[in-house]
Amino acid sequence: MSASRPTEDALIARYFAPLAGPGADGLRDDAASLAPSPGHDLVLTADAIVSGVHYFPDDPPGSLARKALGVNLSDIAAKGAAPRGFLLTLALPADWTEAWLAAFAEGLGQASRASGCPLLGGDTVRSGGPALIGVTAIGEVPAGRIVRRTTARVGDRICVSGTIGDAALGLRMRLEPDAEWVRALDGASRSHLADRYLHPRPRLALADAVLRFATAAMDVSDGLAGDLAKMLAGAGATATIDTAAVPLSQAAARVVDGRPDLLDVAVTGGDDYEILCTVAPDDLDAFRQAASLAGVPVAVLGTVASGSGRPGFQGVDGATRGFAAGAFSHF
Amino acid sequence: MSASRPTEDALIARYFAPLAGPGADGLRDDAASLAPSPGHDLVLTADAIVSGVHYFPDDPPGSLARKALGVNLSDIAAKGAAPRGFLLTLALPADWTEAWLAAFAEGLGQASRASGCPLLGGDTVRSGGPALIGVTAIGEVPAGRIVRRTTARVGDRICVSGTIGDAALGLRMRLEPDAEWVRALDGASRSHLADRYLHPRPRLALADAVLRFATAAMDVSDGLAGDLAKMLAGAGATATIDTAAVPLSQAAARVVDGRPDLLDVAVTGGDDYEILCTVAPDDLDAFRQAASLAGVPVAVLGTVASGSGRPGFQGVDGATRGFAAGAFSHF
Repeated sequence: MSASRPTEDALIARYFAPLAGPGADGLRDDAASLAPSPGHDLVLTADAIVSGVHYFPDDPPGSLARKALGVNLSDIAAKGAAPRGFLLTLALPADWTEAWLAAFAEGLGQASRASGCPLLGGDTVRSGGPALIGVTAIGEVPAGRIVRRTTARVGDRICVSGTIGDAALGLRMRLEPDAEWVRALDGASRSHLADRYLHPRPRLALADAVLRFATAAMDVSDGLAGDLAKMLAGAGATATIDTAAVPLSQAAARVVDGRPDLLDVAVTGGDDYEILCTVAPDDLDAFRQAASLAGVPVAVLGTVASGSGRPGFQGVDGATRGFAAGAFSHF
Repeated sequence: MSASRPTEDALIARYFAPLAGPGADGLRDDAASLAPSPGHDLVLTADAIVSGVHYFPDDPPGSLARKALGVNLSDIAAKGAAPRGFLLTLALPADWTEAWLAAFAEGLGQASRASGCPLLGGDTVRSGGPALIGVTAIGEVPAGRIVRRTTARVGDRICVSGTIGDAALGLRMRLEPDAEWVRALDGASRSHLADRYLHPRPRLALADAVLRFATAAMDVSDGLAGDLAKMLAGAGATATIDTAAVPLSQAAARVVDGRPDLLDVAVTGGDDYEILCTVAPDDLDAFRQAASLAGVPVAVLGTVASGSGRPGFQGVDGATRGFAAGAFSHF
């Protein structure tokens, strides 16, 4: 580190200490203390994003901060939990600037305050390569009530929040900005898709409905087809999905209208950060009502069936197809 | 990722699921649940190590696993806490091999079992550069009893565990293997210093004595002089340290005998992972006895004094010096 740059302690005091929550002692210590509310368990998850792998190096630093926290809060919400705090591991490239760090910290503070999830600690290191932003997020659920991924039961209805494919189409749009399908899109649609790629919206508002009614849940981060396959394989079950029921935004629907092949991108691409869950048929109405009260749209995609093998996606032509190679991997 | 390599899920199932603790659901989910023992708070800390920054790229992967977990457990112990579990963020370079990963996981499993600290979750990503191993460690202390860094009081005695400078001399030895002072060392001394650099020994055995008797504590990771300065600055105090009381191993003492200037490396270098703490004079005997029962040597370096400024180190010649630029930074 060059002598003209502030020390790690000075950077922490200037940019990160203002984000510190109770128990973090103003980030002046090497560790924070935290207790769950009485009768609750903590829920712990860790996800990292890497420059050039999970985001574009020139993405706005405030957006990256939102993304790094958001992808973790998405996991917290999918477990039926409410956020309590997070730790940050920030590995910076040789050419980091204080302006970048200031914008990053400002975006992180906004996301932290908006989600009620204060900073509890972390580490800042040189990466020796591109930047890496690692977050460990902590939430809480009533004791013993964490909603698991692998506990779906045959007969449960398969539900998903929001819309699917926007982020994957937003990413594709950035990779091929001059493609005909991109040029054919109106500005509002383009903005919508770009924003969904850049800014995950963790479904914290749906966590309580998931906690009350879901038999199993996970967030959709690696593509609907692949994540659904994981969820059902864990339960030793399968399903046939009504492809027409996969919820698309107006923008995504416009893309697929002109380029039906891009439906594959929508269904297998990553970065949706919606919640996929299963609900017993008798609870479906109550779940939908709770989701509606929380302001989160949910769609019903099909029913958990006995059997094995990847879920089939049935098209309007009646033919069923799988997405065998479809699971997107960030790795 | 090349098609011939196993998927992230397959790697997790093969290498990391066997390390999973209760609440981690065999790492088949995106999150773990954890509750502190009744009447306890959780203690959270995060530290990452990066290839080429914090370790040599050709260090044995099992040693790196031990180091990555150990540097975090050192923080847990210094807060008076007992380990409960950890999350791992593993960012792998393009040329990672499954043999490296297998050896890494084996070392991690050994360190995890030896410290009673199971794996609770994590993330595996491509680094786009060198490897990064990030750990978030979780411990627990009786509620409200976390031992802070900044709470030393004037008159408290300053204590440190084990020996200081071995790891820094071990690192220097690797950087200049043909130096005269290295060639002058016997084989056992060389092995000792090399091992202390490679394998932190977090002072988990001392945590209970720290919890019972320390008024403030931190682990020594960035050099005794710099860390002591941070600890005292946080308390608005200073101290004069008896340099002759700084505990040196036989190997380090041999080095310093021949090269008195290398005492600076010992006192300012990093990676000791000993515990620095302050104890009220009336509790000193009881603390030393508890440490002795735990099998951990402790030395008394001086007394917390009112005033400000970096602590002075008084030599046998009676002259006092500081280590103004001495604080080692991993950043």
